[in-house]
Parts: sequence; structure tokens; C-alpha cells
Amino acid sequence: MKSAHIPRATIQRLSIYVQVLEDLLQDGEKVVSSEELARLCQVNPSQIRKDLAYFGEFGVRGVGYYVQDLSTAIKQSLGVDRVWNAALVGVGNLGRALLRSRMFRRRGFFIVGAFDCDPFKIGEEIAGLDVICTQHVGEKIAELNIEIGIVSTPQERAQRAVNHLVEGGIKGIINFTPARVQVPENVAIENVDFIHHFFSASFTIYKNQTKGLI
Amino acid sequence: MKSAHIPRATIQRLSIYVQVLEDLLQDGEKVVSSEELARLCQVNPSQIRKDLAYFGEFGVRGVGYYVQDLSTAIKQSLGVDRVWNAALVGVGNLGRALLRSRMFRRRGFFIVGAFDCDPFKIGEEIAGLDVICTQHVGEKIAELNIEIGIVSTPQERAQRAVNHLVEGGIKGIINFTPARVQVPENVAIENVDFIHHFFSASFTIYKNQTKGLI
Repeated sequence: MKSAHIPRATIQRLSIYVQVLEDLLQDGEKVVSSEELARLCQVNPSQIRKDLAYFGEFGVRGVGYYVQDLSTAIKQSLGVDRVWNAALVGVGNLGRALLRSRMFRRRGFFIVGAFDCDPFKIGEEIAGLDVICTQHVGEKIAELNIEIGIVSTPQERAQRAVNHLVEGGIKGIINFTPARVQVPENVAIENVDFIHHFFSASFTIYKNQTKGLI
Repeated sequence: MKSAHIPRATIQRLSIYVQVLEDLLQDGEKVVSSEELARLCQVNPSQIRKDLAYFGEFGVRGVGYYVQDLSTAIKQSLGVDRVWNAALVGVGNLGRALLRSRMFRRRGFFIVGAFDCDPFKIGEEIAGLDVICTQHVGEKIAELNIEIGIVSTPQERAQRAVNHLVEGGIKGIINFTPARVQVPENVAIENVDFIHHFFSASFTIYKNQTKGLI
């Protein structure tokens, strides 16, 4: 990798490239042209070339990209070419959906612990995991080598869940609640925000209406 | 608004500002300093000033921002200062979680129809909505003035769901599946991608480890 300073927007696109490349691999494709890759990723070809420049020279003139090599190179550079164990705190509707999703496992993220502080949920089995009291998350982080914490509690309990995870030695947190939580500097934090997609879509519709397109 | 060309990353942050401002309003706060707003949004103050410059002069020297005025101004500029009706297609785990979430309604997005093609799900009631056969989505779009379609089907059924929505006259689609779907140019499309947050978090952890921070 040429640089460790990959902008966030680039990582977002690289994540899309990896997913598209892995789907191509699963379909038995060995090579993809840069035009086809761009079309599948819904990104323009020059953007792809620019993004991939972080990883050195990968395109082969007249051929395109070798699917396996490019996927591996991107994953290595992002540090995702291995399995990451994750714990999920907050077994509500969204938490259950995340636990049952096969998407994370397919991408190398294994949810190996499910936690909640509701006594009615503790002991329940979801997607093969017994729900454990959140106060025990620290022990499980050590025992199961958990590095990533997923927070899907109600908004008002998010910071408490984060505190439990941080005290337990978590290295990164994916926050699915709208709460802006505080973490120490050495803990990675990612806030998942669905709503901005709704804002973006309605803004585009609003502009299309103004332009008389619809 | 000074410009209709607001970059996507800005919209993403504006969406955060609106959410933080609305939480402040709910707490009865009338004024917020730019430092406090920046802290709550986890964005640096100069970025906030730059983003808000799209909306003219809003900060008051020595005071900060008027919460209500700023929130209204941003929402008006984004076209989200009204209610938008949405239809959800794909009542699986994630679809159910989205239907039951109060987050969308709080932000002005009302899910008024739930659709699925599984005969075992049709007729089931979720969050006050009867699940309807996806083939009838077009009629409901017209009847209920639905402008936004939420797709939470399995990946392989996403394009079909999108086609039903587009044929029914939908104006924008929020795609919660990993499929890259095709829409006509006059339909807004937003792809929700959780995985890039996992990639970003693991990349940050990987960098922190390399730097010896953890």
C-alpha cells in the first residue's frame, strides 16, 4: 500500500469494490474490465482507477483486473483479510436482525456474543447464541478474542453499553443508535446513520421536482 | 440556500446536525454554541461553519446558533421540512426492525405500506400495517401518495422489488440490500451499506495496532 492515509469516502468505495469482487468470484469470474467493475459498483471508471492507485498497479491493459488478486490486495490493505470477532449489545428488533444476517459472516465479521440487560431476554437463543447479561461482556471479550462491539440498544442506553465494551477492552465500536457516544481515543468508533440516506433521497427528489424532471 | 450543489458528504453531516438540533429542541434548548454543536456532532467547529455557509449567515457572534431557526433552515434547504410517505418491500428480519423503528417517523418519514411476495407473510400485521402482496405496490403508491420505497428483501430479489416500485411511480429508493440495483435516471437511489463501517473500524484498529496504540 502506498499510503496509510486513505480518506473515509475512499474506504466506503473500497468496501463496495470488495463486495462486488467477492460476488464476481462466487460467480466464477476471474477477470473484470474496469468499465464492468465501474458499472457494477455504480462508480465512474476514473474514480475506480484513482482509488485503486493506493494499491499500486493492478489493472492490465486490454484485460482489466484480476478479480482474486484485486480483492485480496484491497482486503490486505484495509486489514480485513482475516476473521474479526464481534459482540452485539442490545437484542431488540434491529439487534435480532443483525444477529440473523448472514452478511457479516460472509465478509469475515463473526458475531460470537449477544448481550442485553433485560432479564427477559437473557438466556434466549438467537441465531445460535445465548443472550448474556451485558455486565459479563468484558469476560467474553477476553475469552472469545472479541475486537469489535456492535451497539444496537435503545438510544438512551447506548453510552452505557459502550462503557461496558470499552472497560472490557474492545478495540472498535459500530454504533447503530442515533446517540453520539464518547469513546477513548484508541477505540475506533463508527456511527451507522440510516437517516442521512432518507435525507439524501428526499433532497434528490426535491431537486428533480424543481428541475421539472418528475 | 446559496447553492443546489451540496456534496454528498455535506448532506451526511447536515443530517447529523438536524438530528442533534432536534434532540436539543426536545430537551428545551434554544441556543447552542458552535463549539457545543461541534462536540455533539463529533465534527470540528470549522467544518460546521463551512457546511452551514450553504445556508447563509446563521451563527450569532458570542451566542452561537438559534436551535430552531438553524434546524428549520437546514430542513427547508434539503426539502425535508415536510412529511414523506414510504413503502417498505421485504418483511424479513431487517424489514420488521425498520417497520418497528420509531426513528423514521421522528424524522418525518412515515412508512405507510409493508409489502412482501411470501404468501405466508401477506396479511400479517406488523407495527400497525397489514403486509400486502408486492404486486399491489403500484396501486398503494398512488393511493397513499408514497414517494420513497425502502427495499429490504433478500439480495437476489432486490431488483424485482425495485422494478415494482419504479413501475408504480416511486420517486426515490433506499436499498438496504447489498445488491447494486438499476433505476431510471429520474429515480433517486440510496444504497445503505453497513459493511463499510466494519471495514473502516477494522482498518482503524489495524492502524492503531501498527502504531502501537493498542
